[in-house]
Amino acid sequence: MPLLVLFGLLGAPATPPDEGQWLPQQFLEFDWDELKRRGLELSRDEFWHPERGGLLSAAVQIGGCSAAFCSPDGLVATNHHCGFAAIEQNSTVERNLLRDGFAARGRDEELPARGMVVYVMKRMEDVTDRMHAAIAKAGSDAERVLLMEEEIRRIVAETEAREPATSCSVASFLNGKSYHLHVRTRIEDVRLVYAPPRSVGEVGGEDDNWLWPRHTGDFAFFRAYVGPDGNPRPHHPENVPYRPRHHLPVARGHLREGDLVLVLGYPGRTERYLSSAAVAARQTRLYPLRHRALTGVLGVLEEQASRSPEASLRLSTRIKALANVQKNAQGMVFGLRRNRVEARKLEEEARFREWLEADPGRLSRHEGVLEGILDLDAEEARHLASDEVVSQILRNCALIGIMAQAALWAAEEAREPEHRDPRYSARVRDESVRMLGRLEVDEAGLDLEARLLGAILEASLRLPSIELPPSVSRLAGADGRETARMLFAGCTVTDPAVRQSLAQGVPAWTSSEDPLVRFAWELGQDLHVMRHRQRAQQGRRLVVGRRWIEAQEEWRGRSFYPDANGTLRVSLASVRAYEPADGLRSTAFTTLRGVLEKERGEDPFRSPPALLEAAGRRGSRFEDPALQGVPVCFLADGDTTGGNSGSPIVNGKGELVGLNFDRVFENVAGDFGWNPERSRNIGVDIRYVLWNLENVLPAPELLQELGF
Amino acid sequence: MPLLVLFGLLGAPATPPDEGQWLPQQFLEFDWDELKRRGLELSRDEFWHPERGGLLSAAVQIGGCSAAFCSPDGLVATNHHCGFAAIEQNSTVERNLLRDGFAARGRDEELPARGMVVYVMKRMEDVTDRMHAAIAKAGSDAERVLLMEEEIRRIVAETEAREPATSCSVASFLNGKSYHLHVRTRIEDVRLVYAPPRSVGEVGGEDDNWLWPRHTGDFAFFRAYVGPDGNPRPHHPENVPYRPRHHLPVARGHLREGDLVLVLGYPGRTERYLSSAAVAARQTRLYPLRHRALTGVLGVLEEQASRSPEASLRLSTRIKALANVQKNAQGMVFGLRRNRVEARKLEEEARFREWLEADPGRLSRHEGVLEGILDLDAEEARHLASDEVVSQILRNCALIGIMAQAALWAAEEAREPEHRDPRYSARVRDESVRMLGRLEVDEAGLDLEARLLGAILEASLRLPSIELPPSVSRLAGADGRETARMLFAGCTVTDPAVRQSLAQGVPAWTSSEDPLVRFAWELGQDLHVMRHRQRAQQGRRLVVGRRWIEAQEEWRGRSFYPDANGTLRVSLASVRAYEPADGLRSTAFTTLRGVLEKERGEDPFRSPPALLEAAGRRGSRFEDPALQGVPVCFLADGDTTGGNSGSPIVNGKGELVGLNFDRVFENVAGDFGWNPERSRNIGVDIRYVLWNLENVLPAPELLQELGF
Repeated sequence: MPLLVLFGLLGAPATPPDEGQWLPQQFLEFDWDELKRRGLELSRDEFWHPERGGLLSAAVQIGGCSAAFCSPDGLVATNHHCGFAAIEQNSTVERNLLRDGFAARGRDEELPARGMVVYVMKRMEDVTDRMHAAIAKAGSDAERVLLMEEEIRRIVAETEAREPATSCSVASFLNGKSYHLHVRTRIEDVRLVYAPPRSVGEVGGEDDNWLWPRHTGDFAFFRAYVGPDGNPRPHHPENVPYRPRHHLPVARGHLREGDLVLVLGYPGRTERYLSSAAVAARQTRLYPLRHRALTGVLGVLEEQASRSPEASLRLSTRIKALANVQKNAQGMVFGLRRNRVEARKLEEEARFREWLEADPGRLSRHEGVLEGILDLDAEEARHLASDEVVSQILRNCALIGIMAQAALWAAEEAREPEHRDPRYSARVRDESVRMLGRLEVDEAGLDLEARLLGAILEASLRLPSIELPPSVSRLAGADGRETARMLFAGCTVTDPAVRQSLAQGVPAWTSSEDPLVRFAWELGQDLHVMRHRQRAQQGRRLVVGRRWIEAQEEWRGRSFYPDANGTLRVSLASVRAYEPADGLRSTAFTTLRGVLEKERGEDPFRSPPALLEAAGRRGSRFEDPALQGVPVCFLADGDTTGGNSGSPIVNGKGELVGLNFDRVFENVAGDFGWNPERSRNIGVDIRYVLWNLENVLPAPELLQELGF
Repeated sequence: MPLLVLFGLLGAPATPPDEGQWLPQQFLEFDWDELKRRGLELSRDEFWHPERGGLLSAAVQIGGCSAAFCSPDGLVATNHHCGFAAIEQNSTVERNLLRDGFAARGRDEELPARGMVVYVMKRMEDVTDRMHAAIAKAGSDAERVLLMEEEIRRIVAETEAREPATSCSVASFLNGKSYHLHVRTRIEDVRLVYAPPRSVGEVGGEDDNWLWPRHTGDFAFFRAYVGPDGNPRPHHPENVPYRPRHHLPVARGHLREGDLVLVLGYPGRTERYLSSAAVAARQTRLYPLRHRALTGVLGVLEEQASRSPEASLRLSTRIKALANVQKNAQGMVFGLRRNRVEARKLEEEARFREWLEADPGRLSRHEGVLEGILDLDAEEARHLASDEVVSQILRNCALIGIMAQAALWAAEEAREPEHRDPRYSARVRDESVRMLGRLEVDEAGLDLEARLLGAILEASLRLPSIELPPSVSRLAGADGRETARMLFAGCTVTDPAVRQSLAQGVPAWTSSEDPLVRFAWELGQDLHVMRHRQRAQQGRRLVVGRRWIEAQEEWRGRSFYPDANGTLRVSLASVRAYEPADGLRSTAFTTLRGVLEKERGEDPFRSPPALLEAAGRRGSRFEDPALQGVPVCFLADGDTTGGNSGSPIVNGKGELVGLNFDRVFENVAGDFGWNPERSRNIGVDIRYVLWNLENVLPAPELLQELGF
């Protein structure tokens, strides 16, 4: 079986560590006697069998989130924030499910969650040889990436053609050392079963996001439906609940501090094996710039939102999303510094060098590997801030973004075919021209965009001009906000005739006297250069980076796990408090008392009356006597990242005890390194989920289905 | 001895509580056997003797702060923030003591701290009878206040004439039930001995203000000097150190969690016996309005400060002061809600009513007392928001403030003498006219003031118009910021001729067509009405409020202590951690590790290199083995408020273990009620002070003087 040997070389440490997002196969290789002593009562086969599945196969992917089957009838538990769009889409002003929550009374009341797809793992195949053969033909770093992407598209298309209702993807491990084809059942008839009111599922909002202590009931239930023959098909009234091979029973006992738990799911992306140079650049350049730029952008948007209720409503999702990224950037700056990540990387590199030099064979096998990665990362570091400036402008300034894209493709069109960007085609050029033509820009929109650009320029222009993209570096010394106002003064692109002329190609761009057109043109050129460079770097990483990771693998031996890449992983953990700062200790659990403590009667701390009333009563069957109340959220030292939202957390019996939904602020930078003192994930306790189903927005049928 | 019977009726509870800011005499009446069991090793006489003083007399007042003599040579320890002005005043660009700190090498290097005065308690006298006799002549509520103020001025003037170099004041206790004359030695030759760098003394700045965990080295040392004959006199080169009767030795042992401590000092103002009506009005009206208004004002000022380094420097003190009040208001709203103060008051009032009705004699003695105070407080509550609006405009808008004062006195001048405000005189009117004439207003100043007014109006206009002062309520429904712009559009008072004409009296005000002049005129009328009403309320409180407090005194019996009023008090406490929120616990101490953790290399967390270097070494004699490091700050459940800044904290032996400098956020609302779970004061640990003197900005002479 290909799967069994995939990471046979890697292995796993005898004493399983709480650090690590382990591949299922690696997890099987742990010392299970030791795991048993820590409290794991499952056998290897019950937990995971490459062919027969096992408990782990109850963990599924839904959107960018993780989730779990928790009944034989296709019931899926995930986070409220993972189901947000589906809940919103079923809400109207008259029947506001987002605000009031939703509990289907019986299957026929379940609501279609259009766009939500549940992916169930079917099997994995090693396609490394085929990928390596395809890539070997590359004549340049950039071509290597194109060939890789092309081969992946080909494998996916072939497999999906052979197996309908599956979704295939190829995951690259260890900078391209291995490639796995993941074949997954794709269930697209997903229905909303239960959502708590937003004031439970999102309580704390942006105030509490990324923070402990937490009191968020961040859960929702969906159900996967398939055709009567058991095969997936689109939404249909005669569809029947999907019957998963495995589901997680809900725990009946009390979870306690110190208990072993496992976090199952699909973590998105970590960068645990970065060099010191790469970490330093992120800490001192990328994240501070991102934080500054987004703070400015958010200031502009919030001021705009304060102008009218309509503006407030229209901008709320955008503000929420940006605030999340901004707080993440802040956490990165904080955590990289506090965890001394760069210093620890330097120490590691020194130890790695010693190890390398201790054995001549090893030294020649890995010759120049550290220098190679440091060199590549230093090259990337030189452009990190510049690329971030370009990205922030494109992401936040819609008009400029469309203009810069049009300018980019106009310039490509004018190039000799062999020098063109490989992604250029007449179709993408035409599409960008169409978007430019369709633009509707009014004075208010221009004013807002000018202020957004101003905020980004102001944040960017604090950098040395050598770190800026050319379009921005020529503004060095200027006042960012003033410059943006000047760029937008006398804007001509509101005139359809001007846009028409720009669609004609390069001369209209380069001869325009509108400073905004000139700026967008230059930004388009920066974008071209950036994409080209990034592709070459990516291609070089497939060689230099792969050698680096292979050396790391050999050096670290059995404690090596591949970076998160959206594939199924297991994280071993204990329920565990931590020390957020000198002078403070957390507890491992929060309780309903904290919900009452935070209650303000206004957002984001306005609990539903039914919750407040029920929280005042004692004697619920979901109370933990040890906590003298109903547990709400808990901490564990699980190794998680984005993508682990909705991850089932199971106890040693394999029973569902909670749903992961966040990390603590001190662990935002955990993507770059796990830390026993501060790496804590936050889960909503299943007892709080059940307490809600019984007391707040009652759902007796659902409780029964869950075994209560 | 009058002193011994002053509060004889009050007494003190047998088991001394940690709640209470006790008068020295009350503290003597505690059960000292019980105190001894808790760890107090002093005898009553060692602690405090009305004639011979005792340890307590080492606690002195300096500015609005508390402080302590800590050597026989007049050395005074207080907070850095209490000595801030003196340190700043001795700083120049070349020799920046604020930034770099200061350590005098010998007495001749000590620097004059002009304006700082040390007040040493000499004696107290009961002047109740004389005050009551004077007040009895009042024909109205308002007159009662005037007579009270007049008699106090007379007593003070007589005593100070008899005893030079003393400073006298009359404190009113229990809404005028008792009056004490405090006679204090006034030492005005005060010199700066030691100040840590601002980056130690103020580390954390506004970020950490009112919060735990804390790592601020908020201490400074001064020395009191007197003439060679021992009598106070102004600064003179031949002055000699003052020799206090008592000073506090510095503790040599380790302070530990659970230890008994005493906080000594001069708390400024608490309102522990407010009625439910008064608390409700503060919670729902006063503090939310203040927080909103100051948030708006700070937004304007911070935007202004961001325009240039000069503006930033010029506005920094103002922003700091306002941010402190804003965060305090936020803490009040938070704490009054979280501690359920209104609900607890209602419960208390119900129990009080039961107690009253249980005894007919008692009932007739206190007839109508609860109704009386509720009625008075409800009357005050009706105007609380309105008065706050007027105050915030006057405090934050300098031009409008001066105009409104001039308008007020112009209106008074036009009244018949018998209807005039008793504080009116030709002198105050002339002074206000002079200020109006001297005004220098430029466009930038007008623009800033318009935006400040706009922020206050915006915050105010969210209230029902019935709660607004007439000058503002007529703007109801308007956009606050827009209205402010309109009021300032076409401002005429920049013209000296216009100001000249306004100085001529009422007609110029009422006939002006400048909307700003009309607004200032109306605000002046509001001010007149407000002052008159407040005086009448204050006078009524001297009757109704006094009856209420007397009833409280009888009801509460031995656990009653008078509200803080700037007089010498003792708070009994234990070193004690707390639970800031569900899910978090504090520790009782912070350590140097936390200083390193918070270090950012930029304000407000940029520690001096010498500190960072020393903090990396182990083995200091000031380390506490139990904490595995040097303690920095600690928590106790002492009952403190504003004015307790710099208060010496002593252990059971009467030795100095720390200096109080703040409270935790959850205790900001402690002014309205003490709470065993959350009432915590924060002190800087004397071991951190000593560690600084040894390692950061070394001062071996000072260490020696302190016994190290």
